[in-house]
Amino acid sequence: MDNGYMQLAVQQALRGGPATYQNPQVGAVLVKDGRVISQGYHAHFGGDHAEVACLKGATPEQARGATLYVTLEPCSHYGKTPPCSHRVAEAGIKKVVIGQLDPHPVVAGRGRDYLRQHGVDVQVLEPSAAVLALNRHYNWFYQHERPWITLKMAQTLDGKLNAVTGERSRLTNAAANADSQRLRATFHAILVGERTLTTDDPQLTVRTQALAHPPVRLVVLNRSDAAVGHRLVTDGLAPTWLLCRQASPRDTQLEQSGSDVHVVIGDWTPQAISTFCHQHGWQSLLVEGGSQLHAQFVQAGLVEEWLSYVVPTVFGGQALPAARDTTYAATPMTFTAPQVTNLAGNLRIQAYRQGVV
Amino acid sequence: MDNGYMQLAVQQALRGGPATYQNPQVGAVLVKDGRVISQGYHAHFGGDHAEVACLKGATPEQARGATLYVTLEPCSHYGKTPPCSHRVAEAGIKKVVIGQLDPHPVVAGRGRDYLRQHGVDVQVLEPSAAVLALNRHYNWFYQHERPWITLKMAQTLDGKLNAVTGERSRLTNAAANADSQRLRATFHAILVGERTLTTDDPQLTVRTQALAHPPVRLVVLNRSDAAVGHRLVTDGLAPTWLLCRQASPRDTQLEQSGSDVHVVIGDWTPQAISTFCHQHGWQSLLVEGGSQLHAQFVQAGLVEEWLSYVVPTVFGGQALPAARDTTYAATPMTFTAPQVTNLAGNLRIQAYRQGVV
Repeated sequence: MDNGYMQLAVQQALRGGPATYQNPQVGAVLVKDGRVISQGYHAHFGGDHAEVACLKGATPEQARGATLYVTLEPCSHYGKTPPCSHRVAEAGIKKVVIGQLDPHPVVAGRGRDYLRQHGVDVQVLEPSAAVLALNRHYNWFYQHERPWITLKMAQTLDGKLNAVTGERSRLTNAAANADSQRLRATFHAILVGERTLTTDDPQLTVRTQALAHPPVRLVVLNRSDAAVGHRLVTDGLAPTWLLCRQASPRDTQLEQSGSDVHVVIGDWTPQAISTFCHQHGWQSLLVEGGSQLHAQFVQAGLVEEWLSYVVPTVFGGQALPAARDTTYAATPMTFTAPQVTNLAGNLRIQAYRQGVV
Repeated sequence: MDNGYMQLAVQQALRGGPATYQNPQVGAVLVKDGRVISQGYHAHFGGDHAEVACLKGATPEQARGATLYVTLEPCSHYGKTPPCSHRVAEAGIKKVVIGQLDPHPVVAGRGRDYLRQHGVDVQVLEPSAAVLALNRHYNWFYQHERPWITLKMAQTLDGKLNAVTGERSRLTNAAANADSQRLRATFHAILVGERTLTTDDPQLTVRTQALAHPPVRLVVLNRSDAAVGHRLVTDGLAPTWLLCRQASPRDTQLEQSGSDVHVVIGDWTPQAISTFCHQHGWQSLLVEGGSQLHAQFVQAGLVEEWLSYVVPTVFGGQALPAARDTTYAATPMTFTAPQVTNLAGNLRIQAYRQGVV
């Protein structure tokens, strides 16, 4: 029975989607005498937490003595809203069943402890796959103090990104493009390399849904000059960070352009980029290429997930291979059994690095 | 009803398998008064053709006035056995329903014509996908006067064949290896390049089933010296043809080794290899790598089918990409929507070149 109610709570949580950024997705179900009294979820950042939304659906009388199923440990700190654990205890909830303890350092067991200290019976379940999947990026970020990193690319059957290096090859069909947009909406930051910037002039935006907090856009490049005139620094559709190796007189000009562009000079290894994301609270990073940048993240061991859209074309010849950097040896990285989705003839291949999930 | 009986005949034909080499797979069903009287198939080269096998299951009385469903046009020439069209007419069969005309130049409508000239009612169906698939290689070979060519490889998620060029990477699991063995059994010739020979020392044999005619083994190489000591020229498990660019004193020695080894000197372009296969009656060619050989067949436009086993590993770095030859530009080739089979976590991805099927 617990599992059934927790599954209901998971379904509630999923209604939140990317709008909860940068909070996790949480769902709650209130049960009394074997009946579901009310359900709730965290709908958007700054809005009611799931527990509060759920309690609002019940009368004080109904809530008293009821059991609350919640996918994530109730919070214990004052943030945008008062602590949920206080509200739950005050409402006279008899028992709280928790799907997963909150890895966020300001909670991390304190919500559970507060409830117990205030006479609530607390049961913490072994987190199910469905519960963990709700906040995969969030969990990873707080457990490992760096963003979840996914490599994403479109490639041919022979593993190529472009027919001609420096010229864009449009590979994927409409179904794959739509899927790619949905994917972007679930990330906090998107990264490309300099050649991808200059070859594709990408926007890296989510065009299929309105987001209060669209993913920030990161570019690794030598000098900011290469970015001038490209859409990432002119469209103003999301913040853009130019991670440059060298300073340039253009830097100030770009930053003052009014398009939310930032220039940061540094030695931008994958590790440095990962740390930079962590410092900014970006819980997830989608690396969209090109080939060398993918290879560098593989070499650094900084990959949690692989996601390729494979199109039924073969390039052969000197086409640009996926994830290749000839300056160092191959660095084999093992993934879990891939999941394949057929998107109208394009294949979406997804796998997690072994041991990650 | 016709379709139902033809489907039965297809099922019969499939029982023949690679043992019919180099005849096609054929099945037949004899029907009278709405009842199936007998069924038959071509079981092995030199054995009864399907029509004869089927007629043997019926009494002369039963056969007279019956309808024969046969997947391929009955033959009209004296080969290993007398012409089936004669036997069918002599048996007093009233009607013959043919799944597909035989593209073999010695038949090619002559069986149909013979039957009609001898008072048999003949109906030739529009060939169904199942009927065509029975003898895809055979059909292609006689319609295009060259072998059906399939590129086959094991690759990583990032489209690489080897972590280190010149060192073998064992990528696939047992399920994929078994599938690869089944695949080989359906081909007449298997081709590898010199680097694959020296790196992998492959046998290119079918170890999972006994075949009267195992696929011949072809290697393109500069001089036969590179083959000395390798299993292809010592194991004697199938004929081996060394397609060399230059003659060598070793040539005679290899040919006289008693291991069924042949050396042929020539300019072995994909076109030349294709012509060579045609001259030898090898209806199908499986190109098993390496990277450059695959790329050369792509550039030559000589690819009917793509078949890759994708393993959940990423190599990155300077690993060897699939189908790459940096001496010429990419030559995009479009395939049909890929079919994917999950083989215990390895993905089998198969596609036909657009327009081929």
